[in-house]
Amino acid sequence: MEKINSLTGMSDLIGEKNKDSNQSDKIFQVEKKLVEIFENYSLQEIRTPALESEKLFNRSVGDSSDIVNKELYTFKDKNEKSISLRPEGTAGVVRSIIEKKLDNENHRFWYLGPMWRYERPQKGRYRQFYQAGVELLGYEEGLSELEMISMVISINLELNINNSIIKINHLGDKETKEKFCKSLKKYLEPHTSNLDKKDIDRLNKNPLRILDSKNTDTQNILEKAPKISDFISDEASNLLNTIQNTYPDNKIEIDHSLVRGLDYYTGFVFEAISENLGAQDSYLGGGRYDQLFEDLGGKSLPAIGMAIGIERLSYIANNEHLESTLVSFIILSDKIEEKAYKIAHNLRSCNKKLIIEVQLSGGSLKSRLRRANKDNATFAIIIGKDELDSDTVILKSLKEENSNQKQLTIDELEDFLKSID
Amino acid sequence: MEKINSLTGMSDLIGEKNKDSNQSDKIFQVEKKLVEIFENYSLQEIRTPALESEKLFNRSVGDSSDIVNKELYTFKDKNEKSISLRPEGTAGVVRSIIEKKLDNENHRFWYLGPMWRYERPQKGRYRQFYQAGVELLGYEEGLSELEMISMVISINLELNINNSIIKINHLGDKETKEKFCKSLKKYLEPHTSNLDKKDIDRLNKNPLRILDSKNTDTQNILEKAPKISDFISDEASNLLNTIQNTYPDNKIEIDHSLVRGLDYYTGFVFEAISENLGAQDSYLGGGRYDQLFEDLGGKSLPAIGMAIGIERLSYIANNEHLESTLVSFIILSDKIEEKAYKIAHNLRSCNKKLIIEVQLSGGSLKSRLRRANKDNATFAIIIGKDELDSDTVILKSLKEENSNQKQLTIDELEDFLKSID
Repeated sequence: MEKINSLTGMSDLIGEKNKDSNQSDKIFQVEKKLVEIFENYSLQEIRTPALESEKLFNRSVGDSSDIVNKELYTFKDKNEKSISLRPEGTAGVVRSIIEKKLDNENHRFWYLGPMWRYERPQKGRYRQFYQAGVELLGYEEGLSELEMISMVISINLELNINNSIIKINHLGDKETKEKFCKSLKKYLEPHTSNLDKKDIDRLNKNPLRILDSKNTDTQNILEKAPKISDFISDEASNLLNTIQNTYPDNKIEIDHSLVRGLDYYTGFVFEAISENLGAQDSYLGGGRYDQLFEDLGGKSLPAIGMAIGIERLSYIANNEHLESTLVSFIILSDKIEEKAYKIAHNLRSCNKKLIIEVQLSGGSLKSRLRRANKDNATFAIIIGKDELDSDTVILKSLKEENSNQKQLTIDELEDFLKSID
Repeated sequence: MEKINSLTGMSDLIGEKNKDSNQSDKIFQVEKKLVEIFENYSLQEIRTPALESEKLFNRSVGDSSDIVNKELYTFKDKNEKSISLRPEGTAGVVRSIIEKKLDNENHRFWYLGPMWRYERPQKGRYRQFYQAGVELLGYEEGLSELEMISMVISINLELNINNSIIKINHLGDKETKEKFCKSLKKYLEPHTSNLDKKDIDRLNKNPLRILDSKNTDTQNILEKAPKISDFISDEASNLLNTIQNTYPDNKIEIDHSLVRGLDYYTGFVFEAISENLGAQDSYLGGGRYDQLFEDLGGKSLPAIGMAIGIERLSYIANNEHLESTLVSFIILSDKIEEKAYKIAHNLRSCNKKLIIEVQLSGGSLKSRLRRANKDNATFAIIIGKDELDSDTVILKSLKEENSNQKQLTIDELEDFLKSID
């Protein structure tokens, strides 16, 4: 029979027992840790659908961004409506809060889930990938900026990420940003003949993004260009300094060329990079988007958010494996012994920290114990004919040098399992 | 500015603080509990993409099922390829295990995530909905059936589901199933004029599904029809009895009309229903699918699985809210006090069971304390000018009758927070 393959750029995540090197398990562990951090910061979960009208992303992420311009995964549904698989999380969150008429309150949200981009898959880039994110809605510039960076530092700490650099910048409010763009455009126009096609395109669509250019000719030209630092207010400059001073033990750099690829940012922007990631070195980033609620038809609501690339984060995370006690349950019988299985079932409620694995396939005691050891079990519980007749079990400790074993009644077994911490 | 709405049948899940009545939060809590149960049963997570080739579902779930026949969410991508959003989880899991050449080993998996069906949305039916599932791969009929039902019982127990009935049946192996279908068809053909269109359609495509019919005429005709119990082996009948005997405290009913709507089931099938759900009363179901790996081009691998409808489960679950201690952190200042925020940041690593919520918007002390009470905080930490000058904080207990407050040094505060259980 012909095999059916997965679609291009869509990978499977498959967990393995006791395999810390498994990249899928690393992703799962990183997600778990992130959710713990989010909950400690008193954030609530929000989950929006995978599919939205295409126009939502045109009007939020913006036509000039690569995400919408080249990478949006769009199709026509059965009613010829243009539908997009979400490329990022913020647009859907803002859409949902406006639609539910919750745009008159403050909210602190986290989300986690798959996103899609229809780009040509390359190393480290997938058509389906995972992002977590935080959105603080309804909060003016100030403490919420400190809170975002506090979360970034907590993420670095909890996941043992070394060599992280947090870059911060301020794009000014809407008017400042426009004024700076105009000035930058005016300075660059005489140099157009020295710019490459990509940068000329940026100049026309969103001049700010030229600051991101990797082209050395462009970088040379930019040296004498107007600087955002000459345009932003004193409060904005002070904010950047305050953030550095609040976390003196962390590498926080003010980088006035930091722009971010999404159109909706105004004011404070940031990203965290790691040299261990190679050319695509940013693993999280975000900023303030005070205009987005109004742009999408809602009330005026200040907001700040960040998105975290789960795959990239999992490459640089060094999380310790959480040890849990596995108990391998071995029933030595060729037929189904309901009495024996009943014991296993009842043990489940006895200590929820234990993982009880009933061996579901047969074999000799020796091969079964080998399997228990391979599974990294701490104990084996063995029930054979004698034990069934006498209402007892054999408890065997697998991690001790002289692995001793003893016969216990069911009550004694339960008491023992309850005592395991 | 024009608003953009969510797509038909695609709902937003929005968590709320301290709102146990919030249906979204119930869904999140139910998911968390399920994952705990799965991990206690020593299952590993598996996550397959949302999108697959359409043919995967035609060849697994089957043309005769409603899911593929009427409800599959299919579109053409930019290369004119027929892509489907997955309507269920098993087909993708089997596809991925074959593709990764892991179909020569045993596996125990759980999954959780969104699924899609392009049906006309109606009460309680969404175009995007959530399912969790379990797949035990490589295990013959026997203990793994007991293990599946053990999990169902654990789910009922942990989520305090009352009035649950677990229905079980056995469809026989591939040959038995075919023999029975033939006999059923032969019996029903003379009655065709008394069957409705839907049942005639079932008779032609998958006669077994007629047993599911809600039409009373059909039910009357079926009374004298051949019964599956006359076709299945003694071992199969014994298995059903063993399952009942293993869990005597649970309502487990043998129901020979139980069929399940997916084509790939052979052998043991089951579902759990609750009268609290109305007409669509099943909230989980599954069965054995020993042929599916071969049908999809893999090695012969016996397997059994179940899928759990998260929305339905969350309607009938009565989970207790997990109490966690919230500490509301109040900085009384008009400008950003980095010193004060630094204290909040450092407290985060002091006791991870605590949720520390820095109040990010301003107001008087009175309005801030009102907010802390509304958030159901147990303590408020207050830092004003005096405290900043003297390197102290005010700790106020919000849950005690005579809510006392005391001034503490930062070290004393940390010691106190560490002591909270």
